[in-house]
Amino acid sequence: MAYDGGSFAGWARQPGLRTVQGELEAALATILRQPPEDVRLTCAGRTDAGVHARGQVCHLDLPGVDTDPGADPAGLLHRLWSLLPGDLAVRAIRRAPAGFDARFSATSRRYAYRLVDAPAAVDPLQRAEVCRWRRHLDPAAMAAAAQPLVGLHDFAAFCRPRPGATTIRQLTELTCRRTDADIVEIWLQADAFCHSMVRAVVGALVAVGEGRRAPAWPGQVLQAGRRDPSVRVMPPGGLTLEHVDYPPDEQLAERARTARAVRTLP
Amino acid sequence: MAYDGGSFAGWARQPGLRTVQGELEAALATILRQPPEDVRLTCAGRTDAGVHARGQVCHLDLPGVDTDPGADPAGLLHRLWSLLPGDLAVRAIRRAPAGFDARFSATSRRYAYRLVDAPAAVDPLQRAEVCRWRRHLDPAAMAAAAQPLVGLHDFAAFCRPRPGATTIRQLTELTCRRTDADIVEIWLQADAFCHSMVRAVVGALVAVGEGRRAPAWPGQVLQAGRRDPSVRVMPPGGLTLEHVDYPPDEQLAERARTARAVRTLP
Repeated sequence: MAYDGGSFAGWARQPGLRTVQGELEAALATILRQPPEDVRLTCAGRTDAGVHARGQVCHLDLPGVDTDPGADPAGLLHRLWSLLPGDLAVRAIRRAPAGFDARFSATSRRYAYRLVDAPAAVDPLQRAEVCRWRRHLDPAAMAAAAQPLVGLHDFAAFCRPRPGATTIRQLTELTCRRTDADIVEIWLQADAFCHSMVRAVVGALVAVGEGRRAPAWPGQVLQAGRRDPSVRVMPPGGLTLEHVDYPPDEQLAERARTARAVRTLP
Repeated sequence: MAYDGGSFAGWARQPGLRTVQGELEAALATILRQPPEDVRLTCAGRTDAGVHARGQVCHLDLPGVDTDPGADPAGLLHRLWSLLPGDLAVRAIRRAPAGFDARFSATSRRYAYRLVDAPAAVDPLQRAEVCRWRRHLDPAAMAAAAQPLVGLHDFAAFCRPRPGATTIRQLTELTCRRTDADIVEIWLQADAFCHSMVRAVVGALVAVGEGRRAPAWPGQVLQAGRRDPSVRVMPPGGLTLEHVDYPPDEQLAERARTARAVRTLP
């Protein structure tokens, strides 16, 4: 699935608000002629309000799927193409292999955050997903600052705390570069991200890129281990969920069991 | 200049309508503290309502520019960045060389028309500039159909007629291909285009791409030499003015003189 998050109050269904889950469940309920409360999606990454996706994955349990010709994946895909609004697209539909869970079977999520810091590179046709930044950024300093964050850490300093939830994550990629189109791109991959973690990590790197903080600062924030109010949580519009990885089919169920267990530092 | 044409009633200033020229002239008048009627832009390609640009070029005569520090190009660029709305960006400003005219000095305009014909390739973040197409397209057939249109021809069959204006144009490029992202892209370059010509030429190629017409048809329409109502004028949202070419500085004035002369077939 892909969406422009700009007009959605995030992924998760909320009464009275336009959400990705709400729009998609309503369209599926119409096509499948099911009561809306029986069409319940689970997604890999519950994106916040304003965050985009190009590689979102979700699953849906359909008890009657084997007997209902309306649930044929190819037919469903084309009917969704007609029914969904322009800012929301389902790009492929498959019958899920046994043990698949869009959220818990996933082994990693990959996000990109994009900024433009020079008038010459501004493209209004990409403004939905590229954050305009008034100060010049130094991607090399940001890339250096990113290094200490890679690995298995407690990211409490960058997360909005939730009682009972761990903030330990395996960050497998955190890179920063200037593209040929002069866009500053930050790529992040982890087994999973806590709430606000991506945008807070990017905020710490941007402070370095502007020269307001030393390259060592994001690593120091991480070590301090508690939420630092001087870390800016970046605006959602620059962030896109680009990809979700899953293991081979035969490992899906085992992966889901592992991921459901609370993460702890060794 | 670059803009998302979706919320503009085209380039040309019109009373009571939001246009690119109107917005930009108003911003310049504010910055330069000039009466709005003294700030008059001339552009290379007067795009229709809904058409986008990434490589638009325009010029402005400023009598007091040499004495007014507010007219410094770098300062002007940054003030425009602050003042212009998100769907309109000025990417560079320079003092024009002698003899430069944004419209008449240009030697060619290059446009791209983009369509997506498969759900798997739909990207809502690009929906402003990529036209969704419900039928499968064959870019190879479209590329073959394009060949007879390249060259110096009277494009009356594809143009909205204007009394006293020629419809003779030199079409130097007309290609069609499927990109790596599975987008069907048609690129067109000519010395200049008449009104509706780009979207009518693309419409003729799309009829071939869908299999509704034989590859020879667009060439036959051209030969017939009069406007054919069965040629579909494509929706504006898929069209982007990508680039404008100018000759070396010393040829600018001569080029403007030549271009002002009415084109005739040899």
